[in-house]
Amino acid sequence: MRNKRQCDGLRVVLVNTRNPLNIGAAARAMSNFGFLHLRVVNPFELAFREARSAVGAAPLLTQAEEFKSLAEAVADCSLVVGTSAGGHRDPQHPVRDLRQGGRMIRKRLGRDRVALLFGSEKRGLSNDDLSHCHWLLRVPTREEHRSMNLGQAVAVCLYELAHEGTSIPAREKAALATAGDLERLTSLLLSALLASGYLKPKVDSKSRARAPAEEKIRRLIRRMNLSAEDAKLLLGMVRQIFWKIKT
Amino acid sequence: MRNKRQCDGLRVVLVNTRNPLNIGAAARAMSNFGFLHLRVVNPFELAFREARSAVGAAPLLTQAEEFKSLAEAVADCSLVVGTSAGGHRDPQHPVRDLRQGGRMIRKRLGRDRVALLFGSEKRGLSNDDLSHCHWLLRVPTREEHRSMNLGQAVAVCLYELAHEGTSIPAREKAALATAGDLERLTSLLLSALLASGYLKPKVDSKSRARAPAEEKIRRLIRRMNLSAEDAKLLLGMVRQIFWKIKT
Repeated sequence: MRNKRQCDGLRVVLVNTRNPLNIGAAARAMSNFGFLHLRVVNPFELAFREARSAVGAAPLLTQAEEFKSLAEAVADCSLVVGTSAGGHRDPQHPVRDLRQGGRMIRKRLGRDRVALLFGSEKRGLSNDDLSHCHWLLRVPTREEHRSMNLGQAVAVCLYELAHEGTSIPAREKAALATAGDLERLTSLLLSALLASGYLKPKVDSKSRARAPAEEKIRRLIRRMNLSAEDAKLLLGMVRQIFWKIKT
Repeated sequence: MRNKRQCDGLRVVLVNTRNPLNIGAAARAMSNFGFLHLRVVNPFELAFREARSAVGAAPLLTQAEEFKSLAEAVADCSLVVGTSAGGHRDPQHPVRDLRQGGRMIRKRLGRDRVALLFGSEKRGLSNDDLSHCHWLLRVPTREEHRSMNLGQAVAVCLYELAHEGTSIPAREKAALATAGDLERLTSLLLSALLASGYLKPKVDSKSRARAPAEEKIRRLIRRMNLSAEDAKLLLGMVRQIFWKIKT
């Protein structure tokens, strides 16, 4: 078991989960391995209520935090990792095997808050969900049967994260920007790019036509691996530029 | 994934399992990790039949072998390992942590047939069951909540057994931007920042007054560790923004 401080740094985030049994199973594995902070994004209301009220529901389930959007759910985390069944559709993200990726997450857990995302049972994480991630974690299942049961995937990932390993004296590094900082930067940059004509305006507010470009830029910002200070510096530059373009 | 010969050496043995969902979940995890030989000892008949006929039941479930006693189920195996929730009642057996024990089992799988036993959901393996084991394997759950869901315990154990050992050839990494790319980006960004008023203009061309700010931005760009492609993407954005500010 990791020490408490490290376990406390993880947020397990279930996105669009539909099945109360799976929410309950995820919560049980979390409790087994000592990771007690669950967040759910846009759960199917009834399923979430059922899971919460199930006999023997872990206290961590009753204390789970609920969010309307993934951006809000990861806003205070400085590393956001998506889980993937492997045959994923997004070759832009680095994909790390659970063993190697687990080691990287463990290194970060001592000093940073890390979000680990699990998608819905049917479709996993969407491209939009993935655009919030710094990289992807893959459980090495066999090609003929990639897709895991949600509760089992959570259990396997947390088993790996709970591994004692030879512990790592965290190298002093600049504090990384939180997902909230990065999203503010992304959103301001999008405004500036729109104002400059680099991006085309949406035809109407509901149109998703610009979504791929937005996702591309969101991913670009995540890949930069910015420190909190650098993110602030960039935000200042983009703010000034945006102001200048508008006037 | 282990090679086929090694996976073929394992027999997953469920003893006195009562819940069809758990039998199905165990089968799914087996299929995910490439261990295809399931044996059940004295299952609750109805549960086993239900699990077998469930929609999407893995072929390995329909091919599962059924035994009346544990002794028969492990008769052809040369290593028999029981799984334990930890607070076990049999101090006579060596208990090995999953990481270490998994390594030992992997070593044997190439040449021997190994049985891995899982007990019933409620009581785990009995003392009589344990007496058939060479040693016990423990998943390192936390003391306050030792007992795992059966399907999750199977998944975690098989994930460890499927581990390749020597690491996976890292994915091809994106080519990094050259110093020339970065300097072009730096210089264009400086121009845009100057035009936007973020940086003050030099008093005369020889003045070094702006140098610290320039250096700061040059360093920032280097810290981003950009790929060639990302540098190009950013260059396009800054070019458009600069053009817009000037016009």
